[in-house]
Amino acid sequence: MKPVVAVTFGDASGIGPELTARLLARPEAQAAAQIVVAGDDWVWEEAKRVAGVAPTVKLIQSWKDARGGDGTPLFLSLNTVSNDEIVSGQVTAAAGAGARAALTQCLEAVKRGDIDAICFAPLNKLAMKKGGMHFEDELHFFADYLGVTDYFCEFNTLGTLWTSRISSHIPLADIPKYVTGDRIKAAARLTYKTLKRAGFAEPRVAVAALNPHGGEGGTCGREEIDIIAPAVAELNAEGLPIQGPFPADTIFLKARDGALDSIVTMYHDQGQVAVKLMGFERGVTVQGGLPAPITTPAHGTAFDIVGQGKAKAEAMTQALLLAAKMGAARPT
Amino acid sequence: MKPVVAVTFGDASGIGPELTARLLARPEAQAAAQIVVAGDDWVWEEAKRVAGVAPTVKLIQSWKDARGGDGTPLFLSLNTVSNDEIVSGQVTAAAGAGARAALTQCLEAVKRGDIDAICFAPLNKLAMKKGGMHFEDELHFFADYLGVTDYFCEFNTLGTLWTSRISSHIPLADIPKYVTGDRIKAAARLTYKTLKRAGFAEPRVAVAALNPHGGEGGTCGREEIDIIAPAVAELNAEGLPIQGPFPADTIFLKARDGALDSIVTMYHDQGQVAVKLMGFERGVTVQGGLPAPITTPAHGTAFDIVGQGKAKAEAMTQALLLAAKMGAARPT
Repeated sequence: MKPVVAVTFGDASGIGPELTARLLARPEAQAAAQIVVAGDDWVWEEAKRVAGVAPTVKLIQSWKDARGGDGTPLFLSLNTVSNDEIVSGQVTAAAGAGARAALTQCLEAVKRGDIDAICFAPLNKLAMKKGGMHFEDELHFFADYLGVTDYFCEFNTLGTLWTSRISSHIPLADIPKYVTGDRIKAAARLTYKTLKRAGFAEPRVAVAALNPHGGEGGTCGREEIDIIAPAVAELNAEGLPIQGPFPADTIFLKARDGALDSIVTMYHDQGQVAVKLMGFERGVTVQGGLPAPITTPAHGTAFDIVGQGKAKAEAMTQALLLAAKMGAARPT
Repeated sequence: MKPVVAVTFGDASGIGPELTARLLARPEAQAAAQIVVAGDDWVWEEAKRVAGVAPTVKLIQSWKDARGGDGTPLFLSLNTVSNDEIVSGQVTAAAGAGARAALTQCLEAVKRGDIDAICFAPLNKLAMKKGGMHFEDELHFFADYLGVTDYFCEFNTLGTLWTSRISSHIPLADIPKYVTGDRIKAAARLTYKTLKRAGFAEPRVAVAALNPHGGEGGTCGREEIDIIAPAVAELNAEGLPIQGPFPADTIFLKARDGALDSIVTMYHDQGQVAVKLMGFERGVTVQGGLPAPITTPAHGTAFDIVGQGKAKAEAMTQALLLAAKMGAARPT
């Protein structure tokens, strides 16, 4: 039985809808999962027109029918946003609120067990916030909605390289507050566990340093000596073969050379600068530590190219495939 | 007349000496500059042995003879460190103090006008500090020694992409203090001017944002709105076509695609993670804003491979070529 993966359009003003249409035209996506697209009819019609594809979908009336498919993608019609409230290629509260409404339906379906995983097309965080999301990002919204109390964090994946982080969508000035032994240990444990679930037999996980050149022996910041190295030592004592801390500007070279499967970074751009350079087109974000796998392309809404039929569905496809793989592997 | 470029071994416990030997064996290096190697005899003998090369040098007795060469590399014997004070592949105060002593001689030669530029092999910052350098890095030491009072900063170059930064070897926690309009404007102006000197007719310079996703419209840090964008506007009003701020995790994609010549970054790893991924082997650091060009490979002392004859002199060669090019162009 194929895992059931819900797919949503993300921000209706961005490239998400057209990516979804392109995704459904890919045979490998249909082969990997029973897809359920949940979104507004008018957005779907527009998406197919822009993408220049006409994938077959079967309409369903309720999430209860999600497990009744024969493999053909299913479509569940929602009313989350109206055409006259939003402007293509622009941030609006309405598009943000609509994206959140569709995701909320998916989260409810996860809770009920109607679906195994979620793959959403790109959101715009500012639109989400204008539209009433009172969290620093969608991951915190998901975690709150699903009642997660254990450690959770975002993973950015690129083929076989996974990065996680102990702080994310926060101002740079706030990063040092997040650099605690508890967060590092929790992130490293979750990383190790998540990679196991994603199919790595013996995950090779390393922790990045915070300061330039790893703090230069304590002369350029002491977090490595006082916090990060002791946390790694504790993890090793637990039996987890976590490595590091390694300086941020060379740790990605090790990973690229195949010596590491995953890097626990200290902040957003430490990892994202590297991951986007290493493969912007195919990067996938995994929301880690939640009861069901939730994935999304690492790229954004690309407001500058919306509606031109140029957007490539490579990352969206990888996101769907990963959601399917992890959805199939999850404990039931 | 070829520019006269002094070359020093950097940290004698690292790969610097062997890189210098390899550099002198390259015809393009000799063609670009009148090289003057300044260092200890025993280090030079050991360097040639490890590198497996035996380049011809002509001994000179004093810096006064630096401009009297016929193109054959010159060698000025110094006594900066003794063999029994240091350990190959390890940080020692003696190696740091020795590296600084050799560089001090070069700085004196620059002041007197005996040479046009300096290219030094990798240093170890911790060794430099243990050896008595009371500055955050060698650039600050150079600037102090040369009496520089205007803005100065390090540039990291990779072929035709240059990055500069408004803060460098400081703890991450201190970065926000450095994000001021004055520093951004000074760095952008120096970047524009330095690129002009390095041969760019119309430098395309952009400023990076500080916070994730450029602050997400002020919801994730306000420095972009309050400080960076106004600084860029002032630069534009001065007639400098500086662009930005652009989010850090995508600005390097623009640069890689050829849309930018230079990026003014906000902190060390924002630029260094990218630059090292884009071309660790050939990156060159330029000390910008000093009265004479000073360059060095972007990579470090590579203590793990010292003495094995494995170290590649690609970046060292690029550093020498850039020092020669800028030394030839400098106002006399």
